[in-house]
Amino acid sequence: MRENRMSETSYDVIVIGAGAGGVPAAIRAAQLGGRVAIIEREHLGGFCMNRGCIPFGQMMVASSILGKILLGKEMGLDFTDISTNYSALITRQNELISFMRQGVKGMLAKNGVTLIEGVGRIVGKGRVEVNGSIFPCENIILATGSEWVRPDFPGADLEEATNSDYLLSAEELPKRVLLFGESPWLVEIAQFLQRFGSHAILLTKDKSILSSESKTVSSRLRKVLKREGVVIKTEGEIVSGTKKKDGLHIELSSKDGREILVVDRIITIERRAFLKGLGLEKILPGDTGPYLSVNNKMETGVEGLYAIGDLTGPQLRHYSHLSSEQGIVAAENAMGRDVAINPRTVTRVLFTQPQIACVGLTPKEAKKAGYDVVVGSAPYSMNPFGMIISENEGIVELVAEKKYGELLGVHFFGESACEMVGQAILAIKMEMTLEELAKISFPHPTLSESLVEAARDALGEAIYLP
Amino acid sequence: MRENRMSETSYDVIVIGAGAGGVPAAIRAAQLGGRVAIIEREHLGGFCMNRGCIPFGQMMVASSILGKILLGKEMGLDFTDISTNYSALITRQNELISFMRQGVKGMLAKNGVTLIEGVGRIVGKGRVEVNGSIFPCENIILATGSEWVRPDFPGADLEEATNSDYLLSAEELPKRVLLFGESPWLVEIAQFLQRFGSHAILLTKDKSILSSESKTVSSRLRKVLKREGVVIKTEGEIVSGTKKKDGLHIELSSKDGREILVVDRIITIERRAFLKGLGLEKILPGDTGPYLSVNNKMETGVEGLYAIGDLTGPQLRHYSHLSSEQGIVAAENAMGRDVAINPRTVTRVLFTQPQIACVGLTPKEAKKAGYDVVVGSAPYSMNPFGMIISENEGIVELVAEKKYGELLGVHFFGESACEMVGQAILAIKMEMTLEELAKISFPHPTLSESLVEAARDALGEAIYLP
Repeated sequence: MRENRMSETSYDVIVIGAGAGGVPAAIRAAQLGGRVAIIEREHLGGFCMNRGCIPFGQMMVASSILGKILLGKEMGLDFTDISTNYSALITRQNELISFMRQGVKGMLAKNGVTLIEGVGRIVGKGRVEVNGSIFPCENIILATGSEWVRPDFPGADLEEATNSDYLLSAEELPKRVLLFGESPWLVEIAQFLQRFGSHAILLTKDKSILSSESKTVSSRLRKVLKREGVVIKTEGEIVSGTKKKDGLHIELSSKDGREILVVDRIITIERRAFLKGLGLEKILPGDTGPYLSVNNKMETGVEGLYAIGDLTGPQLRHYSHLSSEQGIVAAENAMGRDVAINPRTVTRVLFTQPQIACVGLTPKEAKKAGYDVVVGSAPYSMNPFGMIISENEGIVELVAEKKYGELLGVHFFGESACEMVGQAILAIKMEMTLEELAKISFPHPTLSESLVEAARDALGEAIYLP
Repeated sequence: MRENRMSETSYDVIVIGAGAGGVPAAIRAAQLGGRVAIIEREHLGGFCMNRGCIPFGQMMVASSILGKILLGKEMGLDFTDISTNYSALITRQNELISFMRQGVKGMLAKNGVTLIEGVGRIVGKGRVEVNGSIFPCENIILATGSEWVRPDFPGADLEEATNSDYLLSAEELPKRVLLFGESPWLVEIAQFLQRFGSHAILLTKDKSILSSESKTVSSRLRKVLKREGVVIKTEGEIVSGTKKKDGLHIELSSKDGREILVVDRIITIERRAFLKGLGLEKILPGDTGPYLSVNNKMETGVEGLYAIGDLTGPQLRHYSHLSSEQGIVAAENAMGRDVAINPRTVTRVLFTQPQIACVGLTPKEAKKAGYDVVVGSAPYSMNPFGMIISENEGIVELVAEKKYGELLGVHFFGESACEMVGQAILAIKMEMTLEELAKISFPHPTLSESLVEAARDALGEAIYLP
């Protein structure tokens, strides 16, 4: 074993992992005057850019365009012979990703961040080893993300049992796909597959899809998916998978009973914090558990050691925007500031069509937290723009505290939800009350008007509701 | 002449005009306990619902779907033989409008507002006459909107010289259309016509289209329109129009010089306050001018007389959402409250593709107002979702005061701009600073992330810009 060389440069901050959290962390630390290095073992941009948000984001856009065509037909736009060319989508995806990787490289260079390619490993307090060299530093920000957990049913080791990565390089889409798990992301994939001509079956252990969100949202989503032909099976478990001539025979149990489904692929995306090989045992006492615990300042409890992103929470909190926010907070704290993330404004989004975007508490959560809860809502079927675009299932639901009208949560189901939720994030962040929100004037005709109407509804003063 | 009958009911509020401003005014006054009547001479919903926002809103959606198809093609969605059936669009439009009129009727009834069909006319202080009956009241809210002004060039009285209404019942679209005027709305119509197979020529007296908006926005819009084939002529004037065998010969002058264009139709939409026949001379001293002057409480200066909407401002301020906001303010003041509209958060929107939404001051206006101005921007070509949807011309521009970072204006050019602008409205309303906005976390991947990045850019701390 060769001896480790000691780097001459001592860094203020070393970030391990150049993904959605690590990159802004490194740039922010450099902006604040730090000497910063970032270590990446594989591709700049991490899971989000290379295998998550970006490629699947594109798929969801393609899927929503197919949805728009149905609306167009109502409006006299006639399309004949619509065909889908999956390999063209994948080619564009790869071009996008490659362009974005270059972008990240450029941003890091512009901000004077040193990029080190290789596997980073903690070898002691303020000492990180990469490719046999030791890099001393004042602070370490861990941002290594998460990794897929292969399920453990008999047959889960078959070639046909895959994760989401499979779709990124498939020549064509499998005809019958079983999507198994609790991740909301599986719902996006199911809708995409169904619209691109596959048959998608969603199987979850939970009592419903999106079980942690407001019923207003999850029940509408279920209705839309079912109408499109996606089969949803709840309280489910896979007993075994067997490869046969006509496909993969999956024996499963669900609320519908015991049955055998014949499919071409199973896709699961259970993910866990990527902790192995980081050398945590060198500085963190005891077992870390399934993920690294941090406070709202992204501190691990060990001085100079921060952790951000998927590494620090269960899969339901694996959102790139949370990673970025945490990355910036960790960087600022590492550079001597004293800042914290606002856990109330972490947004849960789904780029299905209609989109879903939820921020803050559900009615159930708010009641459980002891609030005297008032709920207001405004369906898009009563919103002029909603009527124009036939967004009949769409709705905004708003949860507030009764006495002072404090906003506790807002849930959007409909077109542009993932953009519109920004309004709710700002309102919660700025501690707006229902009274204040009810007085806002948003442009007409837009879906945003329904947010104001939902606030009025919560106050018993709806103007445009029947 | 028959004698006027006196109604036995005395109303707290009578609203004249059941459009985008009058309807919420009436409902709000009733919610506050008032006995309220609303008078409508034609159709419930007024210009916005029957001839403006709603029918043209649908056209712009149809137009944007055609744009989405081009994106879909990049993503491997292949369409052959796209055809447009204009009469199907018009049929759907008429169904929408008829459904919405019923909705307004229902809302008024639910709130106990008396609907009086006929022409309302002031006959004295607190006295309104309709169909020969006199209705006494404490307060009058005038909401009669605006009317088309036929241009005065020789030939403007030809059948082919029309306004926007023509498109609402046309059997098919004219092949060559000249759109003449300064209204931003003409730009929407031009793009729609061009995408639906007509050839659109925009002629404005101004030095550019959208001349009052930020150059960042107007120059990008010009580029997009030109690429789509819309011809734009500035500093223009029509000399005359003559009907000939091959079409309407329009002699015009513009920056390009003097020329004759042969078209099938001219569309103009200059509009002025609808003041005639209201009986204003009975209670308002002197000449009203081109529109009724009101303060931010919508007071006219005569006790108990309020005016709202298109009646109260030049065409550039004819926005339905402004009318609604003013309507609610007028109603609350009429019912004894003391409220005012916030002129800083009136949004200017354009439902072109890309959409445009601007709130607050342009850089030029801010400088003129004496602010020490800082401008930040974030182009969507650097935004991950912007890259996915090829929103290459899109951008968010933000204008702020330098010392305290007070937000003065925000301008969006791109997809979902008219929904996203809600974020800027709330930020300005809640007096958010650049520092606060720069710390917000919006979901990924969305265009909204660029608003935060624009705030960081204004602070010299952009993270994701090259």
